[in-house]
Formats: sequence, C-alpha cells, structure tokens
Amino acid sequence: MAESKAVGDFGLIGLAVMGQNLILNAADHGFHVIAFNRTVSKVDHFLENEAKGKSISGAHSIKEFCEKLKTPRRIMLLVKAGSAVDDFINSLLPFLEKGDIIIDGGNSHFPDSNRRTKELSEKGIRFVGAGVSGGEEGARYGPSIMPGGNEEAWPYIKDIFQSIAAKSDGEACCDWVGDEGAGHFVKMVHNGIEYGDMQLICEAYDIMKRGLGLTNSEIGDVFTKWNTGVLDSFLIEITRDIMKYNDPDDGKPLVEKILDSAGQKGTGKWTAINALDLGMPVTLIGEAVFARCLSSLKGERTRAATILEGPEIPEFTGDKQAAIDDLEQALYASKIISYAQGFMLIREAAKQYSWKLNNPAIALMWRGGCIIRSVFLADITNAYRAEPELENLLFNDFFKKAIQKAQPGWRRAIVRGIEMGIPTPAFSTALSFYDGYRTKDLPANLLQAQRDYFGAHTFHVKPECASKNLPEGKDIHINWTGRGGNVSASTYLA
Amino acid sequence: MAESKAVGDFGLIGLAVMGQNLILNAADHGFHVIAFNRTVSKVDHFLENEAKGKSISGAHSIKEFCEKLKTPRRIMLLVKAGSAVDDFINSLLPFLEKGDIIIDGGNSHFPDSNRRTKELSEKGIRFVGAGVSGGEEGARYGPSIMPGGNEEAWPYIKDIFQSIAAKSDGEACCDWVGDEGAGHFVKMVHNGIEYGDMQLICEAYDIMKRGLGLTNSEIGDVFTKWNTGVLDSFLIEITRDIMKYNDPDDGKPLVEKILDSAGQKGTGKWTAINALDLGMPVTLIGEAVFARCLSSLKGERTRAATILEGPEIPEFTGDKQAAIDDLEQALYASKIISYAQGFMLIREAAKQYSWKLNNPAIALMWRGGCIIRSVFLADITNAYRAEPELENLLFNDFFKKAIQKAQPGWRRAIVRGIEMGIPTPAFSTALSFYDGYRTKDLPANLLQAQRDYFGAHTFHVKPECASKNLPEGKDIHINWTGRGGNVSASTYLA
Repeated sequence: MAESKAVGDFGLIGLAVMGQNLILNAADHGFHVIAFNRTVSKVDHFLENEAKGKSISGAHSIKEFCEKLKTPRRIMLLVKAGSAVDDFINSLLPFLEKGDIIIDGGNSHFPDSNRRTKELSEKGIRFVGAGVSGGEEGARYGPSIMPGGNEEAWPYIKDIFQSIAAKSDGEACCDWVGDEGAGHFVKMVHNGIEYGDMQLICEAYDIMKRGLGLTNSEIGDVFTKWNTGVLDSFLIEITRDIMKYNDPDDGKPLVEKILDSAGQKGTGKWTAINALDLGMPVTLIGEAVFARCLSSLKGERTRAATILEGPEIPEFTGDKQAAIDDLEQALYASKIISYAQGFMLIREAAKQYSWKLNNPAIALMWRGGCIIRSVFLADITNAYRAEPELENLLFNDFFKKAIQKAQPGWRRAIVRGIEMGIPTPAFSTALSFYDGYRTKDLPANLLQAQRDYFGAHTFHVKPECASKNLPEGKDIHINWTGRGGNVSASTYLA
Repeated sequence: MAESKAVGDFGLIGLAVMGQNLILNAADHGFHVIAFNRTVSKVDHFLENEAKGKSISGAHSIKEFCEKLKTPRRIMLLVKAGSAVDDFINSLLPFLEKGDIIIDGGNSHFPDSNRRTKELSEKGIRFVGAGVSGGEEGARYGPSIMPGGNEEAWPYIKDIFQSIAAKSDGEACCDWVGDEGAGHFVKMVHNGIEYGDMQLICEAYDIMKRGLGLTNSEIGDVFTKWNTGVLDSFLIEITRDIMKYNDPDDGKPLVEKILDSAGQKGTGKWTAINALDLGMPVTLIGEAVFARCLSSLKGERTRAATILEGPEIPEFTGDKQAAIDDLEQALYASKIISYAQGFMLIREAAKQYSWKLNNPAIALMWRGGCIIRSVFLADITNAYRAEPELENLLFNDFFKKAIQKAQPGWRRAIVRGIEMGIPTPAFSTALSFYDGYRTKDLPANLLQAQRDYFGAHTFHVKPECASKNLPEGKDIHINWTGRGGNVSASTYLA
C-alpha cells in the first residue's frame, strides 16, 4: 500500500520562487517531484497553476510527503538558513528510513552543514549541504549546484542534480565538492568572489563617470565591448543593461537615481571572516565587504563631503580610449588576483578541515549558471585540469602571462584614481597583493624585530643568514636595549 | 582572628613576569600586595628574591590568599586568557564575600568579559575586565590600564590602578572605560591599531630600503628625525634602535637577518572580525592583519618571486629627501585614518552593545604606557576633550588640516610604490578610505542595481531623485530585462 503511493523521485520542501523553479526544472527533466510547504495552501496553489500538467504532486503533511517518495528518499530543503533547517530535519526524521537523503539547498553557513552531516550520519541518514546559485532564472533553467556532505548520497542524487544544473560546453555545472560542509563552503567563497567582482566593476564605472566624464550610455558601450573580451561574464552583461536603462518617466539613467548604500546578506562577510580565521590574505573580498560598509554610512559621508578636501577632478584631456583600456586591464588583473585568493582560501580550508576538494570541478561549477559565470572561469577550469594540484592560480602559465600583460595598464589606472582622488580600494589591494606575493623578502623582518623588542616574542633567522649565534629554525630573542631581562614570549601582554 | 590576617590591599594571581612586575609596581606605590601562583614554589622564590623587603606577602592556597586580603577584596588575575580565568574564578568563589572584586588583567576576548561580568554580578561579585598594555617594562614602571565591567568596583580600585598606571602630562593613563567587556574591547582595538602602526612603519622602511636604496643606518637616521616630529612615538623610537642594531658577530644590521614571516596573537584578527561583524570599514587593520598572513607564506612567496614579474626597480635618481618627506606624510596621514577607523569601531560597538564609553579617556589611556603611545594621542585626546561626541576624528579641525596638508605627499608616496612594484597595502587602503569617505555619491548605486537585477533585492532612491514612481524610502524593484516576474528579495538565493 505504502509502496503504491511512492511515486516521487525527488521531494522538495519550500515553495518560494527558488523552490518552485527548481521543481519545475526537475519535472522538465523527467523526474516526478513531490512538493511540500509549511503553509499548505501554497502547495495547492502551485499545483493548480505553475505545476499544472507536469510530473509534480503535492503533499499536505510531512508524513504524506515522505510516503510519496521512493527509497532511498531524496529530499531537498529550500528554506531559510538557520533553525528552520533543523526544524524541518527534525520533523522529517520520524518518517525516514536508513539511507534516505536530506539535501539543504539554502544559504547555510558551512559549520552548520558540518554539524548536520555528522549528526545525521549517526542516525543513518545521508546529509548533503548544497550551495545553489543563479537566482530565480538559474533555478528554473539551470543553476550552479555545489553539493558536499555525506558522499554515500552522491550516486543517488548525481543524476537529478546534473540534469537540472546549468551546462557549460556540454558539461553540467554540478559535481561532488567534498566532505561535510564543503559544498556550502565553496558556495560561500563563490559569494565572496561575487562581492569582489561587483566592487571591481563599480570602481571602473566610477572612474569612467567621475574621472573620464563619460555618460551612462557611453559607459554602457564600454561594458558592451568588454563583454566580448576577457571580461565576458554575466555581471558585465547586466552592468551593460543597467547603464542603458533609462527611467521611463524622464528618460534619464535610472542607476544614477539609486541610493549608493549597499546591503549585504552576510556571505561575503563570512568569507572575509573565514579568511582571517584561516590566516589567508583574501584581501580583495575583504575590501569589497568594507566598501559596502562604507557605502552604507551615507549620512556621515554626505557630511564628510562638505568638510574633507581632495584634489580637484579636472576635465579629462588625455587619451580617453587609452584610459578605458587601462581600466579593462585593471579589472582583469584584479579579478585574477581575487580568484587566486579565493582558491588559496579553498586550499587552506581543505587542509585545515581535512577535506578532499576537487579544484577543477569547483571552477567548472562556477563556469555557468551562477552569478559569477564567465569565460574567465573556463580558463581557470583549464588551469586546474592541466594541473589539479596547482599551488597557485598565478603560477599557471596562462594567468601568469595574462597578469604580466595587464600590469602596466593596471598600475596606470590606479595611479590615475589616486591623482584624481577617486577611490579604487579593490584595484589597489589586488596590486598590493600581487607586488607582495612576488616579493621574496617582505619588510615583516622589521615587524618581527619590533615584536621581539617590546614583547620578547622571539624571531627566526633567514636560513641564508644563519650562524652559530643565530641558529636556523630556533626561537631567538635579542636584548635590543641592553636593559630588561630574559623574558619569554609567553609572559608578554601587549 | 581572620581580621588580623587581613593585611593585603591588593591580591594578584599569576607570577609570570607581567604579574611580578605589577606587584612590584603596586608595592612601590605603598600598597600591601598578596601574591599567589598555581605552582606555589614560584611564590616562595618571588618572596625571597624580587619581592624581598617590600610590602609583599605570599599565600600558599587560595583560601590563605583570600584570608589575607582586606574586604572588599581586590583580586587581579594575570593568567592565560581562556579557561584558566574561569577556573581561577571558580576556585576563588567559595572564599569570597559579596562586594568583593575580581579583575581579569589578561588578554581576554571581550565577549568572555561580557559573560563574566553578568555571571559574577548575579553572585554579588564585582567583575572587572582590564586591558593592560606596555609589556614587561610597562607593568613594572607604569602600564596603560583599560578597565571595564561592573562600575560599582571602580571607586575601590581607582586609587590602586591610577597609582600604578603610566602618567602622561601628569594624568594617569587609566580611567573607567565602560560596561561589561568594554575594557577588553578597547584593549583589543588598541592591539589592532598597534598592528596597523607596525605595518605602516614596515611599508615606509621597505620603500626606503628597496625603493630609495638607503642603508639601515640611513633609515635609522630618518626614524630618529621622524621621532622628533608628528610621528614621535614608542614604535618609531624602537624602529630607530632596531635599524641601528648590528649583529656583534659581523657588524651587519641584525634586522636584515630576521625571517620576514610575522606571527600574530589573535587580537588584531579579533579587531578585524569585529569590524566585519559590526559592519564598520576598519580597512587599515584588516590590511595589516592580511599583510602578516601574506608574510607567513614565505615558501610560496619565494617560489612566486622566481615566476611572477614586475617593474624593474631602477636606481633612484630623484630627490631622496623629498621622497622621504612624502613617506613621512604618507605614514602620518594613514595613521590618522587608522585611528579614525578605530574610533568609528568603538563608537559603533558602544551603540550596538549599549555601552556608554568615554572617548577622551580612551585616547588618554593610549597616550602613555602602552605600545602605541605617542604625541599623536595627545592631539586625539585634545580633539575628544574639545568635543566628546565628535562624529569622526577627521571632522576635528586639527586632523582635518593635518590630513589636508599631508595629502599631496601621501598620494605621491603611494604612486611611487606602485611604479616601483613595492607594495603599500596599508598606505593605499587608508587613501582609498579617505577618498571614499569624503565622497557623497559612491558607485554603490550600481551595486544596488546589480543586486536588484539578478536577485530582486530592491533598492532605495536618492532622496533628491524621488518621484511618484520612485518614492523615497521605499523598497523598489525594477524588472530590468522585461523578463521574469515579481520575485521578492526574500526568495533570492545567489
């Protein structure tokens, strides 16, 4: 009897737009989907409208929902991250059997997915934390999906996920990411990179508008052109559209009327905090998050604008096209740095959390379907396919040459911003990183001397400078002043 | 009987160098101090040596320690932050009476001090979380002390704390900071600023060394000179000493032999994470922490140095003194920005945590005794005394003019670094912040348009651009493409 009811290949809980669209997408690919929502009237409304005539059934209770699914059950939650996920998991558990699969497709913080993977594994339930990107349209016609968690689940969900996912050059933008919360982790880094990409575009726009005096339509033309080159990407494409969009009421560019106070949903912030926690210099995302923070201080900035002075921005009399080309190089080089930093963070996370991660697959998952989709990510995929254990994206020959070529324009663009008093925090931090990263001897030797001077923190000696009194690999403390005693670092409180 | 034993004005637990020195300092100021340490032999050793002949007694058990203290007992813990603090508090509690005071003088994270203030208040015990800075020598002859917590304790500890604290122009570098963990919070920001100050000095040093080709001795002369001007501070002073310190074995500058891989103790990281959590753009400390992270990737950088190219650094043929003067201005202006950002964070913390904080007192506490002590902090103290509710340090007339004057050199110094390929992440982020902060209309309008385009996040309109169809203060969503429906932001998953 129960057997006869079990028609569903895939169950989905949460009928907001993303959930509805993922269901329609799965149905289009031949799967029979069971839909459930806490407010049950939404189920009926969905069945009578968008879902009509498709291989979609509804359920009016968790029990009925579970009974309608074939085993092992494949259940996806698309509900608000946080306690709602735990609540639904708890209400599902009484109706599940060992081997059933719960997939959290929301924007959960990866430590929660670590915890859920472990807790559910102890109960015989396979948990998957899957990052899903692409917004409304992606969900309907092909999102990027980044699943991680209990790998035993993967053979059972691979077919569905790769069917509904975006395709890039014929390959699905979905593959197994790794253990525990690795899927949500990679989605978090994706969002952080998205913050960075958006900030970079904003800086180019600001220089073109205030520095070069271009109209919105002219800036739109620049983005149109950029979208045919190395910067070809979803975000450049929509920026082009935005620049060309005029308020129907007065025909003036709508974007100029929008309040310059940016919100955030937290995932960019999580990425920056994680970078600090893991000790990785993911500076571009950090600056992008801080740029949003600064933008939100609109009132204070408005007052500051009347108080604090800077250079006059003169009418630009130089070679405009050359300056625009420099900006393109600045954006491209900075973007390379940002992705290199993102993959540095992923590499370190894999190390510190003991995850086995699949770098080429990650690049491929970001290649299509999601907000940061771009031609650029095909080059990254190629780089990691050629060398899966590549130490740094910048060491790949293609990117090494690309950044080398972009360098002069990148430097000129930043200098132009500095001289005009137009901020380019993300361009600048990317260049500082590049120049620091390729420096064998940074000035941190002085910093270590300072720490030893005031706090007896000790230092190591450069191997090439080791001597009898300065042995390699040993903690050395120097009495810099001739005063003070033999304090040890453990006693220091600064 | 118990009464007769109670001779101690002040009890201190934890006889590492900081603890010993604070005891000696208190004894010098006429207080009778009771010393205790978990390893009791340390107490006897201390009494027989450093403490001999001074108004210092020891205890061999927590019970004896408490019995020897006058009520209300004033007990300071100088033990490792974390569980050791809770363990000592728990072992003290059976021997304490209502109204007794426990002071945690370690480097505790402020949320722990929030918790301890509340928990102990319920038991009738007054808890104080006090940040202490100044290292070994500070503890002995006058540290900076930043106490916060249960304000009822302040009248009982004020005399001791202000006696042993550093003095600046006759004023004690210790005052009541505010509620709960506010003392440890302000100490955390102090440490973050210390990270920033050190990074700024490193950038100036790097440009002088690699860019201008100065010898260590010549760089030492520059710091000697800077130490007589606006940069006059402890950190500049010790940098001068470090530059002049040669390895006795071969007479070569020792600092050049030190491995450029910087460690951190976490408080800089905490500050940056707190800034992200509170949404305040404390970019300079963020970059300083990331610079340490990058420095620690020494092996990877060494490989990168052989792979990644940059501009050749030519022999400097320009006006060296002018370039050095520009660096001084860059350091000074960046430092103003860093402190302005630090006080922005403190202001926001006070708001979000409902603390009443005393800005002029904070500046005064940092004025002397601690690692960031400087002439500069006297100017900050003056600024906040003149206007305690000053919205931003940059709005103060002195600093507004100072940064205005420093601006041209600051910009030139950064441009020089960019052209030579020598990184100045902290100088650069400070300038980006300054130029962003004084910009009424930042490009975040585009960012909001992008978020609305791909995720239906909605936006607000600039008040001056409001119209019937674009009402002020309302969440507005535009169908940018003509496709798609009326999604609401709550359904977005990007």
